[in-house]
Amino acid sequence: MDLLKPRPANSPPLTPLAFLERAATVYGDCPSVIYNSTTYSWSQTHRRCLKVASALTSLGIKRGHVVSVVAPNIPAMYELHFAIPMCGAILNTVNLRLDARTISVMLRHSESSLIFVDHLSRSLVLEALSLFPPNTQIPNLILITDQDEEETPSPAVDQVGPTYEGLVEKGDPGFQWVRPESEWGPMVLNYTSGTTSSPKGVVHCHRGLFVVTVDSLIDWSVPKQPVYLWTLPMFHANGWSFPWGMAALGGTNICLRKFDAKTIYAAIRRHGVTHMCGAPVVLNMLANAPDREPLPNPVHILTAGAPPPAAVLLRTETLGFVVSHGYGLTETGGLVVSCAWKPEWNRFPASERAKLKARQGVRTVGMAAVDVVDPESGASVKRDGLSLGEIVLRGGAVMLGYLKDSVSTGKCMTDDGWFYTGDVGVMHPDGYLEIKDRSKDVIISGGENLSSVEVESVLYSNPAINEAAVVARPDKFWGETPCAFVSLKTESEKPTEKEIMEYCRARMPHYMVPKTVVFMAELPKTSTGKVQKFVLRDKAKTLGESEVSRM
Amino acid sequence: MDLLKPRPANSPPLTPLAFLERAATVYGDCPSVIYNSTTYSWSQTHRRCLKVASALTSLGIKRGHVVSVVAPNIPAMYELHFAIPMCGAILNTVNLRLDARTISVMLRHSESSLIFVDHLSRSLVLEALSLFPPNTQIPNLILITDQDEEETPSPAVDQVGPTYEGLVEKGDPGFQWVRPESEWGPMVLNYTSGTTSSPKGVVHCHRGLFVVTVDSLIDWSVPKQPVYLWTLPMFHANGWSFPWGMAALGGTNICLRKFDAKTIYAAIRRHGVTHMCGAPVVLNMLANAPDREPLPNPVHILTAGAPPPAAVLLRTETLGFVVSHGYGLTETGGLVVSCAWKPEWNRFPASERAKLKARQGVRTVGMAAVDVVDPESGASVKRDGLSLGEIVLRGGAVMLGYLKDSVSTGKCMTDDGWFYTGDVGVMHPDGYLEIKDRSKDVIISGGENLSSVEVESVLYSNPAINEAAVVARPDKFWGETPCAFVSLKTESEKPTEKEIMEYCRARMPHYMVPKTVVFMAELPKTSTGKVQKFVLRDKAKTLGESEVSRM
Repeated sequence: MDLLKPRPANSPPLTPLAFLERAATVYGDCPSVIYNSTTYSWSQTHRRCLKVASALTSLGIKRGHVVSVVAPNIPAMYELHFAIPMCGAILNTVNLRLDARTISVMLRHSESSLIFVDHLSRSLVLEALSLFPPNTQIPNLILITDQDEEETPSPAVDQVGPTYEGLVEKGDPGFQWVRPESEWGPMVLNYTSGTTSSPKGVVHCHRGLFVVTVDSLIDWSVPKQPVYLWTLPMFHANGWSFPWGMAALGGTNICLRKFDAKTIYAAIRRHGVTHMCGAPVVLNMLANAPDREPLPNPVHILTAGAPPPAAVLLRTETLGFVVSHGYGLTETGGLVVSCAWKPEWNRFPASERAKLKARQGVRTVGMAAVDVVDPESGASVKRDGLSLGEIVLRGGAVMLGYLKDSVSTGKCMTDDGWFYTGDVGVMHPDGYLEIKDRSKDVIISGGENLSSVEVESVLYSNPAINEAAVVARPDKFWGETPCAFVSLKTESEKPTEKEIMEYCRARMPHYMVPKTVVFMAELPKTSTGKVQKFVLRDKAKTLGESEVSRM
Repeated sequence: MDLLKPRPANSPPLTPLAFLERAATVYGDCPSVIYNSTTYSWSQTHRRCLKVASALTSLGIKRGHVVSVVAPNIPAMYELHFAIPMCGAILNTVNLRLDARTISVMLRHSESSLIFVDHLSRSLVLEALSLFPPNTQIPNLILITDQDEEETPSPAVDQVGPTYEGLVEKGDPGFQWVRPESEWGPMVLNYTSGTTSSPKGVVHCHRGLFVVTVDSLIDWSVPKQPVYLWTLPMFHANGWSFPWGMAALGGTNICLRKFDAKTIYAAIRRHGVTHMCGAPVVLNMLANAPDREPLPNPVHILTAGAPPPAAVLLRTETLGFVVSHGYGLTETGGLVVSCAWKPEWNRFPASERAKLKARQGVRTVGMAAVDVVDPESGASVKRDGLSLGEIVLRGGAVMLGYLKDSVSTGKCMTDDGWFYTGDVGVMHPDGYLEIKDRSKDVIISGGENLSSVEVESVLYSNPAINEAAVVARPDKFWGETPCAFVSLKTESEKPTEKEIMEYCRARMPHYMVPKTVVFMAELPKTSTGKVQKFVLRDKAKTLGESEVSRM
């Protein structure tokens, strides 16, 4: 038995890139990508990706180089998820809603060799490059023009240098794509952003992305040839791996440059959308749209990124969306915990079902383990749904590590075999995990650990409130007190600060009731719809010591 | 980037064993295994497997030991697919329809430490053990009694020594199962048997079985909580990986000790079966059952093991079965090529659809590559649907190798990175593979390579013929000529040898027409329904030189 070792025939590197060629064989004539009046078939997408990969090679891009992309969910963005790693390079998608300074830091830190830029982000990226120190190598730009965009079409091509479509034209469709030498070789780089102020470069390898891609397809039970609507930005953790997943199943990718509730409902009707992903804020948008109407066919929507308030889940499902809820981080490449639904829960009333579905759930089948551990002893917390601890994960979807940051990598991936998420949660008696907060979002008031998410959940159940976020406000006596920031559905029926506090007092322990309520027209959010708590924390600090704290 | 290496948090060994614990968490109260009047839930199955694994450890079974099982598709057989590898040992399931001599060879070659035996196979295994040479260590037997079997219940337990249920009783449900040290560590051993006369021990590792299990679920689009009917023997390539697949999805395993068409139809009605697997002979059985009736709900049936005759496919689908067709070998742990269905094919007439579905198809998403190569040059054959070559595969589902047989391992898994299947096929212009024969089943007549499968396919379209197999008959002039063995549907309307030849002559080139037709009541078959061509070849040889050969 000892003589049996891996051989070339059984150990080719696992990689999701191989799905594309297969899609061209099986689904060659079926639509792969639809965007406004443009439709590509899978054989066209396959050829276009090979041509871009070949053109990149001609430009001198080699294995291990980083190539960045600043673009919304347009066809080029989809194709580059294959084309860049197919020439051996590492794909780095950049959140196009970041400021020039942050983008500049990322481009320098990643040592990007080349940057693909959507025409509407061109000045942003040029500004980012202008911030490079003198005598630094400035990467070349390749412009992604967009003749199919109605509001702000691209300028005439001859003004702007090399373009994406120029690369497609020049490329060789017979290109032999550069297969990874090892499945542990890097394939993508994603900077975490938004909720923390210090971006880190998360590196995923081919194997990890293969695992999370097939795992997500099984976990969500996605059938063959789904019609997938791209609302979740592909620059956000590579759209939770679904660019590759759609190639595995021959799905149709409905691309959208930007969206609101109206665009989503129109796309669902026009294309027969079956699946989409989105942060809870998207669900909220769909549920509160003024011209919403029940769906002709069920649309499966996968949500994650923040715990969805039960009230939002409930309203979305009433409209005909089938909501699945999961949990993942940029560091896991996609969702690795999901609220696997138990058939017996269907007997419960709708509000109880929504509460159960708001829990993050259990590990997906591709993951080895998930647990909630006491931050001091490292032991599992009690499975009582009450004891707070840090959520830890182990499995093939966990990143390789942070780029050029072995200290941070070593801190979150220790020798005990866990990846420490920095998220705080509880384990319920039935083995389902529920997130209570990011570590840094926990409010410690009078020695009690207080979950901001639980307070928010009650605020969301108030019919006047549109969005809510709760952070710590410094307090000399209590240490911290909860401070709520809320936006209202209509300005006409505006409850007072006192009415909101009374609403909370009737529904939660006294120490959890917000001692401050701040009304805002809209909460500050990242491009993916996560509330930027660090902004609110800063705001809460500027309020000074709370006045109601000695009650 | 070079500093980013696998760490314990992202590189735990991939293994399908981890699905069981998750199934107990998510589907704890749902049925896992149903057999006659016995029903287990997933939490019961989880506990029972842990108890058996713990009892095996108490018996001294350690990592790397081989534990054999001789049993049909009963609950113990299902449980042992987890329990044996969960104590670190290697699972070796034995085809219980083999003769004592062959089983004896396998038990000795595998150095089995322990044997689980179904009570009806006890005398067979005792006979096999009696053939062990003197002074050889004889492994202990653990009897699997079956109080739930109506026709031949187990003898009183006190007569027979240690039993499976005794192990379950003694075991510790809190046992910490023995996780693999490496995903390349061996997990199962399967002897190939039946169509060849020299059994070889195929070893699969944890990683390979993880890959083929999730791959098969995606390829067959199996939803959560299917009701799976066990007609395919689990001792046949571990039931194409579905014992583990059902745990991944919380399915219900309907176990059957033995079956015929009537039992299958009854189980479908009683349990609401949604999925089942079977060789084409099972489809034939279902299609020709006298009391068959259209199904109330579609039943998905996955077939492989031999090319299904188009006529059989057609008849089965008419009854309401949704047939998927794939291809694999014991050496690939399950199906790794499948006839991925193209939506545009639905427009074709039924007979054309059946012909398309009879092709083996394309690689599954978990495999890296499949090709048909010229046996001499090693180059890909033309994609013309005509040029014969050897089918080669590459991917994570390919076995580690043959146990204690580095010569055979090296011969089929060469340094060029291919696993050579020994099967002969063609590649169609659309990239779909079609098997034409096992290498040794190709008939070479007058210098022409002749696919026995093509001749059989025409014979199957004859309404009087039930089963057909074509082999080579030696001929001084032509080298070989095709010799057909056929069984008829009813003895009453018996065509003559000449009529069958004329039927063929109207439908194929002259050199392919069988020059001999032998009528049999039933063709000799392996336990999994494959025709034993080596038996027929021997028979054809005893016929001597063909008389019609100089025509």
